[in-house]
Amino acid sequence: MTASKSFTITYRILVSDNESIDAKIEGICLEQTVELPRSVISDEIYASIVAKPEYIHQVSPNNWIVTARYPLANVGDEITQFLNVLFGNVSLVPGVKVIDVSWSDVPDTILPGPAYGIQGIRDKLGIPGRALSCTALKPVGFSANQLAGLAFEFAMGGIDLIKDDHGLANQVYAPFDERLKRCVEAVNEANTQTGLSSWYIPHVSAPGDELWRRYELARAEGAGAVMVCPQFCSPEVMSDIARQENSLPIMAHPAFSGSFIMDPTHGFSLDFLYGKLWRAMGADFSIYPNAHGRFSFTTQDCLDINEGCRTTNVPYKSTFPTPGGGMQRETVSNWLQTYGPDTVFLIGGSLYRHPEGIRRAALEIRELLEVY
Amino acid sequence: MTASKSFTITYRILVSDNESIDAKIEGICLEQTVELPRSVISDEIYASIVAKPEYIHQVSPNNWIVTARYPLANVGDEITQFLNVLFGNVSLVPGVKVIDVSWSDVPDTILPGPAYGIQGIRDKLGIPGRALSCTALKPVGFSANQLAGLAFEFAMGGIDLIKDDHGLANQVYAPFDERLKRCVEAVNEANTQTGLSSWYIPHVSAPGDELWRRYELARAEGAGAVMVCPQFCSPEVMSDIARQENSLPIMAHPAFSGSFIMDPTHGFSLDFLYGKLWRAMGADFSIYPNAHGRFSFTTQDCLDINEGCRTTNVPYKSTFPTPGGGMQRETVSNWLQTYGPDTVFLIGGSLYRHPEGIRRAALEIRELLEVY
Repeated sequence: MTASKSFTITYRILVSDNESIDAKIEGICLEQTVELPRSVISDEIYASIVAKPEYIHQVSPNNWIVTARYPLANVGDEITQFLNVLFGNVSLVPGVKVIDVSWSDVPDTILPGPAYGIQGIRDKLGIPGRALSCTALKPVGFSANQLAGLAFEFAMGGIDLIKDDHGLANQVYAPFDERLKRCVEAVNEANTQTGLSSWYIPHVSAPGDELWRRYELARAEGAGAVMVCPQFCSPEVMSDIARQENSLPIMAHPAFSGSFIMDPTHGFSLDFLYGKLWRAMGADFSIYPNAHGRFSFTTQDCLDINEGCRTTNVPYKSTFPTPGGGMQRETVSNWLQTYGPDTVFLIGGSLYRHPEGIRRAALEIRELLEVY
Repeated sequence: MTASKSFTITYRILVSDNESIDAKIEGICLEQTVELPRSVISDEIYASIVAKPEYIHQVSPNNWIVTARYPLANVGDEITQFLNVLFGNVSLVPGVKVIDVSWSDVPDTILPGPAYGIQGIRDKLGIPGRALSCTALKPVGFSANQLAGLAFEFAMGGIDLIKDDHGLANQVYAPFDERLKRCVEAVNEANTQTGLSSWYIPHVSAPGDELWRRYELARAEGAGAVMVCPQFCSPEVMSDIARQENSLPIMAHPAFSGSFIMDPTHGFSLDFLYGKLWRAMGADFSIYPNAHGRFSFTTQDCLDINEGCRTTNVPYKSTFPTPGGGMQRETVSNWLQTYGPDTVFLIGGSLYRHPEGIRRAALEIRELLEVY
């Protein structure tokens, strides 16, 4: 296999007391390639097609870190088959968690990385050093004009990125096309008054061609970026957007992704999914549930995701970590000290609760981010 | 909400010792709709938009079954947003498992169900009563001619459904177009000799338009059906195929789906995902890992999936349960007695191991299914 191109997948593996690690590794290497027992495949197929473990490290009695090497030809040139090799049938095997890939071995025709990355986004926004603020327009049920009114207030308060809630799609309350137009107008109007350059970011997740229609409309109307939920759109969607000439930046939202990371012994590690994988797929921003919010992540979990988004050990531009979900305006300065300025702080509900209204709440966030 | 159209989602909910079930339910009903605290939304939005629990049943001290009713207008008319309402942000909440939906309230523009179902497949195949046999062409690494040679032998032995392994995509070893042509030819030639009507079923999962190109080519060349991995294709793909005039039947493969069902306290119940949801999406066949094979399902798990595939309590045509993965030719007759004749038995590796070759192995399976 040494002559052909190959890449590695690294797993955290839990074995039960009656399992042998060697048998479990061989099972994974067969399952994710030939899907046949060793006894019925030829030596030639075994040598050239079946994955081979190349690093096996025991962390504790039942926990192992294992890296296996796969022929790149088993993937071909499609992200669907890459995901299949990454976690197809082994998704059904208990105790298998994918924690890394040798990304530099994976062609950018499969996974291109972000079109802009943290520096490219800073350049587009004209914000060289500080952390960015983000908020979500909601609730579903509001009209396009009501949502645009909120967008205006947030932009007047200087929120950098004003995105749709992921619950806004194309409902009758605020149909996509109308919402897009009203919110772009509102944010542009505010930008004229403030001299700032806040972005409106519409949520474009939709079936098939309709996603592309919304994306193109968002670009034509002058949206700053688009938001996509990678877990219920095609896996190539972010990459295909990132490859467009002069594309809109992409914000990835974690809806429907929780099952991949909820079980500590199965699925993907947090930094793998919300950091490296979505980054490889093309996300300029990766939204994830912040620690101590409504969800169950720890501060260390979040630091790990941030590292996956920003590490220079992968061949892609970086991704802006975008912690949100239960982020309080009172706690942003603490989080800023913990996460550093290459972070987007997504603050939703707590801005809506401010006794003096959302423009005032937004201004306070802006002042806070300018100071640090 | 009673005046507007609505639908229900039923959850199995686990509360920890310091959680209240009422607070957890309210959290879900807010999270999956307005994504704001109750205190910052108006009474009007609360009444018309937020989900409402309508059945709360304590199963054991920490386990509850809860049904909540959602306005259909929150979904609109798109499967992406349906999945968002179904399990978007709550996928990030521990202890939440979706176990049912009031399917008859969901428009068929979102979820159409299978185009054929069990009876339609039987009519197309001309097999009125008995269970069906299925096998997989593999391993990846074989040439199109080698795979076609296997297909010929399986068809000569009378296997009804001869599908690609899901590991076959468009690799250089056996590119899709060539594999399709060779395998259709091989199975047609065998059918001419046997007088039977075995189907070749190519795996068409691919990014975007390429999936559709493969689907159309499969139809043009005369494939019997197509196989798709729903979990790494767009969620609308099966529905869109099922809606085509004179469409090819659809076989759904569980690759990449394991995270949704692995945790007993989170995700989807087995009968929900592999039964009702994939059925609603349009799968004529639902492949799942059989009990006592390489994976970890119990016989009761499989019976539950079969019930989800076949129940008449949903407004869709039925789906052929297709247990596979570690199904042994020696144990098929026992499984047939357990699962009944409205089942497809997917037998892979054990046919390849038969000392007298795969045609002989296939003939034994056929004899066995004809007898019962």
